Amino acid sequence: MNKPGPDTMNNDTICALSTPSGTGAIAVVRISGKESLAIARGLFHPANKQLSFETMESHRQYYGEIRDDGKVLDEVLLCYFKAPHSYTGEDSVEISCHGSEYVQRRLVELLLANGCRLAEPGEYTMRAFLNGKMDLSQAEAVADLIASESKTAHRLAINQMRGGFSKKIAELRAQLLDFVSLIELELDFSEEDVEFADRTKLYQLLTELKQELAGLINSFRYGNVIKQGIPVAIIGKPNVGKSTLLNALLNEEKAIVSDIPGTTRDSIEDTIVIEGYRFRFVDTAGLRRSEDHIESLGIERTYEKIRQAAIILYICDMGSADPESLEDVLNEFRNYIQDKDKHFILVGNKIDLLAEAPAHLQEILELETVFVSAKRKENIHLLAETLVSKVKEYSLSDQVVVSSSRHFEALNKAFEAIEQVEEGFKQDLPTDLIATDLRQALHHLGSITGEVTTDEILGNIFGKFCIGK
Amino acid sequence: MNKPGPDTMNNDTICALSTPSGTGAIAVVRISGKESLAIARGLFHPANKQLSFETMESHRQYYGEIRDDGKVLDEVLLCYFKAPHSYTGEDSVEISCHGSEYVQRRLVELLLANGCRLAEPGEYTMRAFLNGKMDLSQAEAVADLIASESKTAHRLAINQMRGGFSKKIAELRAQLLDFVSLIELELDFSEEDVEFADRTKLYQLLTELKQELAGLINSFRYGNVIKQGIPVAIIGKPNVGKSTLLNALLNEEKAIVSDIPGTTRDSIEDTIVIEGYRFRFVDTAGLRRSEDHIESLGIERTYEKIRQAAIILYICDMGSADPESLEDVLNEFRNYIQDKDKHFILVGNKIDLLAEAPAHLQEILELETVFVSAKRKENIHLLAETLVSKVKEYSLSDQVVVSSSRHFEALNKAFEAIEQVEEGFKQDLPTDLIATDLRQALHHLGSITGEVTTDEILGNIFGKFCIGK
Repeated sequence: MNKPGPDTMNNDTICALSTPSGTGAIAVVRISGKESLAIARGLFHPANKQLSFETMESHRQYYGEIRDDGKVLDEVLLCYFKAPHSYTGEDSVEISCHGSEYVQRRLVELLLANGCRLAEPGEYTMRAFLNGKMDLSQAEAVADLIASESKTAHRLAINQMRGGFSKKIAELRAQLLDFVSLIELELDFSEEDVEFADRTKLYQLLTELKQELAGLINSFRYGNVIKQGIPVAIIGKPNVGKSTLLNALLNEEKAIVSDIPGTTRDSIEDTIVIEGYRFRFVDTAGLRRSEDHIESLGIERTYEKIRQAAIILYICDMGSADPESLEDVLNEFRNYIQDKDKHFILVGNKIDLLAEAPAHLQEILELETVFVSAKRKENIHLLAETLVSKVKEYSLSDQVVVSSSRHFEALNKAFEAIEQVEEGFKQDLPTDLIATDLRQALHHLGSITGEVTTDEILGNIFGKFCIGK
Repeated sequence: MNKPGPDTMNNDTICALSTPSGTGAIAVVRISGKESLAIARGLFHPANKQLSFETMESHRQYYGEIRDDGKVLDEVLLCYFKAPHSYTGEDSVEISCHGSEYVQRRLVELLLANGCRLAEPGEYTMRAFLNGKMDLSQAEAVADLIASESKTAHRLAINQMRGGFSKKIAELRAQLLDFVSLIELELDFSEEDVEFADRTKLYQLLTELKQELAGLINSFRYGNVIKQGIPVAIIGKPNVGKSTLLNALLNEEKAIVSDIPGTTRDSIEDTIVIEGYRFRFVDTAGLRRSEDHIESLGIERTYEKIRQAAIILYICDMGSADPESLEDVLNEFRNYIQDKDKHFILVGNKIDLLAEAPAHLQEILELETVFVSAKRKENIHLLAETLVSKVKEYSLSDQVVVSSSRHFEALNKAFEAIEQVEEGFKQDLPTDLIATDLRQALHHLGSITGEVTTDEILGNIFGKFCIGK
């Protein structure tokens, strides 16, 4: 990755469109860096001729024209943010122009021609981090906040952006640092064979640390699901109405739907937000057993999707289902039905084809069952309610939740290092070896908030941002 | 159309997302109306606790939080625009939030729950018009400016928005008003049978007015084409490579392409911006004569498209074309080839299949000809250059050009009224009848800039805007 390092970056003045691409009433183009005001000055002609750029106030909107080769490109509002009182911590300028595609494109072109460089993805936020406006986990939360489509994902991101998670990590580091100073003091006097640290107290501290870390690590199960959407596998024999059911659910909830690109051809994903929860529906290939190699692969993937799902919807056709064949289902999916981490729901579709409600099935199968008619859109709200009831456990109070796999990984490594420390004590290893493991734990915790970092880590993190942020 | 009238509207405080929909680094939500600041106050908590809303300065960005049920929805910048120094001329507030779909949606929901009404399409600009911030033709230009994708369409819109067209209309109206006063003076003294107005001078003035109006009316031919795109019909026998050619042109120019929705199945439109000109390519159905009714309809539509086109590209397959069959083309399209308002270009495709360049064809046919290989992307730049050379006439200096069909219609009606006046003079009609026609002409000119207007006209104009503008 040929990304400019921190030093290069801070010398360039960057620009980019900051509002979503497309046509709208207005759009905002941001400039950041030392030359922001000088570059803006070359293009912006304030309506108030008395206005001097030297005395331009920070945070004030000025009305005027952007000129392109002597002609007016647009009438705009320009706002100067004097360092360090800006998002990036550098001198910045925001220009609000009309949201025409031509004006947006041309304005950026003019800025580039006048000395700006086009911002890299996430470069504004990376600069904010490098200039100490936020720590690394907060910077990462900015991307999560922007991507958030559901209430729960938003709550997670905003808590992290506002430093809830950082504070927790800082507390753990502080505890660990106390521990390290005690150990290192012991190390300094090791030849005298003195034990300064009270070992019982140290053990207790280690146990506490491990508990806290384990709590955070476990929270990733929730955090990841909330961020990515709760995975729901839709399974069933061919022609039982899986697609119709999905569409009925979409309409019933007037839900927000988005396609996830890059999914495999045979499992199409739809996401629907219901009551603030984002569900990720995976429509799987059929379940017939097959001798055909290709089809077997498809079925293998179906089982893989089922394993990854938090909720399994087994759709059956009530017009043709009978208790015996349903009991086969019960046998086939017994593992998943008994799995405490999964919710297995039987959806009896096509009840419009039945004379009477098949309530007895539920008792026979001892399964949570919802009867619907996807075609006639009957009882779809019951299914939606059932889905939401299964994920109430994911509703967050303000406790700290890990939602980034990078943090999850770092916490796991810190946990392992602490386990090594504990093991070291048990085996009565020399203090300097124990100190090494402690420093490892500190390092991994520090990598979360960016106390220790590398250009490569930064490149990986900010490369995933959109341009303009 | 159940649109609130001007009176209702000015009492409501409205809000809407003003930036393009979708996800971005930031988004802007605008509030306008008397209660703007009061409503914002209920949601916005400035970071500076000392800040009082009573002393909040106009045009200054304040940093703070939007709270939703006690919890932070987002960290935002809020800017207050005190009436009349805002876009609408009313008290307004702009909130720059993070460009997450959830945050954008929720912020608007909170504003609605706190006393805002969702803005109608174009309502901000309609209010700007009603509050005298701009005249009607300027307001219409705002929508054109936002929709502009090409340099020429942009130039047209911005000139109109900045009042170039309004000034011209005002001049014409002033001339006409002078005329009317003279005539009406005569009318007041009509019983005395006195002719105050110098008839020769009046005739001259009428001729001048007609010329000016005719000039504007004619400019619509250019204006409309620039706004809608220059219509280019692509015709030819089946399998001569029409689609391949269009794709080659797209790639060659790294052009901006957009689909126009609502086009008929058998004529697909692509628009490409080349050197600032927007071309609207109409790929037509084949040209075979057919006894089949359905296919005949398709061919009828093809001829309709050809009639509407400014440029006709006749594509032929050089691998199979011979001078005789091309002369048939010459005969079939003689009317269009000789039409001074159209450009007929023969495109000899598949030159890769030929041993030598078929330069002699051009002489034989006396047609402008470009030889290309769409498949190998050869000479595509020549075709692009030829297209642009044909539309240089559409390049605008800063002369006033009519681009709105509403204005075109009003100008035509004004022109007809002036002709009636002229006719009246010739027939020595009573002055009061002539005065009626003059008032008609004034009325139609006034309708352009909104001196005279109705709720229905306003509804039609602003209903076409996007929400948020």
